[in-house]
Amino acid sequence: MNDELGMQIAYEEAVKSYEEGGIPIGAALISAEGVVLGRGHNERIQKDNPILHAETSALINAGRVDAKVYKTATMYSTLASCFMCSGACILYGINRVVMGENRTVQGGEELLISKGIELINLNDEKCYQLMQKFIKEKPHEWHQAHPEEFEG
Amino acid sequence: MNDELGMQIAYEEAVKSYEEGGIPIGAALISAEGVVLGRGHNERIQKDNPILHAETSALINAGRVDAKVYKTATMYSTLASCFMCSGACILYGINRVVMGENRTVQGGEELLISKGIELINLNDEKCYQLMQKFIKEKPHEWHQAHPEEFEG
Repeated sequence: MNDELGMQIAYEEAVKSYEEGGIPIGAALISAEGVVLGRGHNERIQKDNPILHAETSALINAGRVDAKVYKTATMYSTLASCFMCSGACILYGINRVVMGENRTVQGGEELLISKGIELINLNDEKCYQLMQKFIKEKPHEWHQAHPEEFEG
Repeated sequence: MNDELGMQIAYEEAVKSYEEGGIPIGAALISAEGVVLGRGHNERIQKDNPILHAETSALINAGRVDAKVYKTATMYSTLASCFMCSGACILYGINRVVMGENRTVQGGEELLISKGIELINLNDEKCYQLMQKFIKEKPHEWHQAHPEEFEG
């Protein structure tokens, strides 16, 4: 799986969330062999649930996975992972995280790096533009979603 | 709300999880005025969901809360919070975390402290004993739940 293809799946999830009226952040957990283990999007608004970020939704969708599978997987997310989602990657031993962008907000990058996780930023313009569109349309929703840090 | 009372609620949740066959970790998010905003327990096994830890379940139960409410609340958890749950507290600006114990495993303590969050360890014997009982009974479930770090 090349990273652009992985990010494309995450972006499709972000678009799905936008179309549902939600925060347009998507994620996908993909194995070293290119198998999509799980994919999902932020559902804070859709399900009135503060911990359903894109990455946590992808982890739920993947189900309970063996440690050795997590270890070789990559987490793709259209936006830099927040501290909760960075922590979830650390918890499950995911060693590689690819973000669409971190211009909208920065998150747990330093935490991930401090734990030896490989972190790649694709600086994807369409991920950024989709977030900017949402924030312009629903500033209050965005502000409430990341009181201290940000939504990942 | 004194901390022993807050921990009692978290412990009740842990017992509930144990009785359901799940990992016996409980949590409660309690306001400065003593209002229980949310409570919950680990449901990894019960709902086949890797991100339903005690703290995240309590946050879901609390719903979408205003930043100012999170700021004055305390998160009680029967076991030291893992990196995901520590990150969730950071994300939402919860400034105080009280753990039942960290003899079973250590988690995101340093991360919480580095963010200026007040962290208290009650060294509660019954929280510890309940975890030990579970680990003895279901070692595989426990091991799978915290491949890199641990379950909070």
